[in-house]
Amino acid sequence: MPYDPAVPLSPGFVEQVPAFLAGDDTPRDLLERCIAVIETRESDVQAFVTLNLEGARAAADAAGARYKARAPRSLVDGLPIGLKDIIETADMPTQCGSPIYEGNETGRDAPLTAALRRGGAVIVGKTASTEFAYGNVMATCNPFDPNRTPGTSSSGSAAAVGAGMLPVAIGTQLMSSVMRPASYCGQVGVKPTYGAIRQAGIHPFSPSGEHVGAHTAKLADAWAVLRFLSNEAGPVPGSHGIAGPETLPPAEKPARLMRMYTPGWDIADGSVRAAFEAGLDRLSNAGVEIIEPAGVPELQALEDDFARADWCIAEIAAFEMRWPFFEYEAAGHTHHPRIAKALARAHEITLADYHTALDFKAAFGARVRAASETIDGVVGLTAPEVAPVGLENIGNPVTCSPATCAGAPSLTLPLLAADDMPLGLQLIGFHGEDARLFGQAAWVEEVFG
Amino acid sequence: MPYDPAVPLSPGFVEQVPAFLAGDDTPRDLLERCIAVIETRESDVQAFVTLNLEGARAAADAAGARYKARAPRSLVDGLPIGLKDIIETADMPTQCGSPIYEGNETGRDAPLTAALRRGGAVIVGKTASTEFAYGNVMATCNPFDPNRTPGTSSSGSAAAVGAGMLPVAIGTQLMSSVMRPASYCGQVGVKPTYGAIRQAGIHPFSPSGEHVGAHTAKLADAWAVLRFLSNEAGPVPGSHGIAGPETLPPAEKPARLMRMYTPGWDIADGSVRAAFEAGLDRLSNAGVEIIEPAGVPELQALEDDFARADWCIAEIAAFEMRWPFFEYEAAGHTHHPRIAKALARAHEITLADYHTALDFKAAFGARVRAASETIDGVVGLTAPEVAPVGLENIGNPVTCSPATCAGAPSLTLPLLAADDMPLGLQLIGFHGEDARLFGQAAWVEEVFG
Repeated sequence: MPYDPAVPLSPGFVEQVPAFLAGDDTPRDLLERCIAVIETRESDVQAFVTLNLEGARAAADAAGARYKARAPRSLVDGLPIGLKDIIETADMPTQCGSPIYEGNETGRDAPLTAALRRGGAVIVGKTASTEFAYGNVMATCNPFDPNRTPGTSSSGSAAAVGAGMLPVAIGTQLMSSVMRPASYCGQVGVKPTYGAIRQAGIHPFSPSGEHVGAHTAKLADAWAVLRFLSNEAGPVPGSHGIAGPETLPPAEKPARLMRMYTPGWDIADGSVRAAFEAGLDRLSNAGVEIIEPAGVPELQALEDDFARADWCIAEIAAFEMRWPFFEYEAAGHTHHPRIAKALARAHEITLADYHTALDFKAAFGARVRAASETIDGVVGLTAPEVAPVGLENIGNPVTCSPATCAGAPSLTLPLLAADDMPLGLQLIGFHGEDARLFGQAAWVEEVFG
Repeated sequence: MPYDPAVPLSPGFVEQVPAFLAGDDTPRDLLERCIAVIETRESDVQAFVTLNLEGARAAADAAGARYKARAPRSLVDGLPIGLKDIIETADMPTQCGSPIYEGNETGRDAPLTAALRRGGAVIVGKTASTEFAYGNVMATCNPFDPNRTPGTSSSGSAAAVGAGMLPVAIGTQLMSSVMRPASYCGQVGVKPTYGAIRQAGIHPFSPSGEHVGAHTAKLADAWAVLRFLSNEAGPVPGSHGIAGPETLPPAEKPARLMRMYTPGWDIADGSVRAAFEAGLDRLSNAGVEIIEPAGVPELQALEDDFARADWCIAEIAAFEMRWPFFEYEAAGHTHHPRIAKALARAHEITLADYHTALDFKAAFGARVRAASETIDGVVGLTAPEVAPVGLENIGNPVTCSPATCAGAPSLTLPLLAADDMPLGLQLIGFHGEDARLFGQAAWVEEVFG
């Protein structure tokens, strides 16, 4: 199914709620439409590692009864959703893409799973993740070209939404694991401010760097589900959560956006560059001032920091991954080379090295915050390439790592294309200003109309 | 066994290491001495919920072989230690003082457990905790008076060390759960700077407020084990760990200490007040300037904040405990009234309320940090009373909550007594300055000689 940016993904969820309330549609019918797509596409795409259609149908029927009584529990009542398979679910195994956890039943829900259930969401299945969201890839392929990667590590979540199987799936990101696959799979992807959503019950790799994020067909759903989770599952303990209205904040035109390069720009090919430049022209023509970092010392300093984000994230991860990966290693588990490389550093790194990386991160985060006096946000490519050919070629995180390292909210919109494949436009906002970023994204979507 | 402050607790561990290296003693012999005390006292004190003497003997023998080869793995190699039973251990159940987790085998070690094993420590058993470190008490009693509480919630850890069964046991503290039982049981208790030691694999109640701490016979052991854990288990992800020398920092005289009152002073009885005043006189006679907060506006503001610490900790806990306690409730578990009361608030509290409490905490923490320009630390009672009579009378956290809420390091020294029972002298330091606090504590111990 080749990519056509003019054909929108399956309808969003929030936009269908009025029909549930009016009695013109039901969550069960919505679920059955999702299941029909799953039945058509899943054998090729392989987005799921576990499906629980029986449980989903029961949950959808219960949601339907609530809508009939005009008493839905929340904005996600009846939402068909998939969860990355490193997130614990009481009714499905949590296998983390690893033979270590084959068939692993923890018997409990992670906070975000429990919150979704309390809110009435319909948990359809567990989506494929690379091993521990870092290692070897699964069989999942890109829904727009089976010879290409869907991106990692939230491969299954991105593929399920990109294939139109689900309106929403949850992913996690340490470097680029929500944003990059969302770009490759032609959808909205959001990584909120660090700490917006609690990570307990999610297999840890580097908890101080990991973010829960969303893959969605529509921007409004991303806001609704992330805001819901931040309030109901709660933030990472000690962090502030997402404040703002229940539904998508109103469109807000950013006056000045900094153009992000990072080392990613150097490796972007001509068609990708052209698509991005054309996108910038649209924003510029709509009255947004695009600021070149080279002309503003504090922004150039930011651009210089962007290039160190990968190092900083990897260094912090090497220290934090010692648990539980030292235990897996002691038990004789053979890791994928990506994990093995990180683990080699984990054996060398000291607390002082960790402090050095944390201190860089804190200074970088402060620099990003300070930039809010000069600019309203940052615009860049979500990935320096469209989805590469070959499932093991997972692409490059370098354009996503800066926002992740800073802990600033970022999102990708499926507004660009190159080589007949989707390409995301990335917007980065400021810490705690997730609502403002979504308002800007809503405005950008209107501009691209 | 009535309390006599002139009789020190069993020898510390670090001080015995030279004998291991010299071949004059072995970790196995030390362990057997601990087991002999356990065999004598445990039937009365009931400090442990699980003992693994076979595993401990094997670990001690392995440590002995390393000392014989003059190649101990770490400063804790051969250390007999107990772990509060909310901390996961692969070789023993983790029952959390709750029928929900009766016989619960998680099959994995928490990061701190794994670090202790890697360092060669000898994990003797799991010590009694109140249910989820918050609810109903266990059968453990005070080692100096069986009619009195050992304090909670790290009851078993405090009792085991107080009875001389172990030189070191690990506890956790949300309000006062290490410091208060340490005061009641006549030992050193330390709650390091917030985040110094990773909490994964420990049953969560309010992770942004919980601290891993140590109960020890000797100050030098508390430093050695906490510094080791901070480096090897790592800090709470994103937090800085304990920096400083491997062994106890040198004694350092504090020039100026603020005297802490809190609402605890009002409820302290005459004998407790007299003991504390006599302690202050000793410090004063040794040349420490004791600062009354009433005379210094910024210190009086701090004293006013101290009184709000209990509220702030409880409010944050009410939000964070929703997971997993909403799930326990949904499964029909009947909680102890203390947990039930917190849970009632958990059902009402909003993200905005949570932010209000976090913001107070941040401002309070900043005020404590700023006080370091005026004073070298704070001195106060660890508890406003000696161990109360009756196991369900768990005493008052009000003198410990301020340092816990601020995230500042605090420790209690067994230097006072009242009514023939131990009474702790509390010292509070500044964020990240754990080494300095230990140096001051070493100096205070010398003054009390």
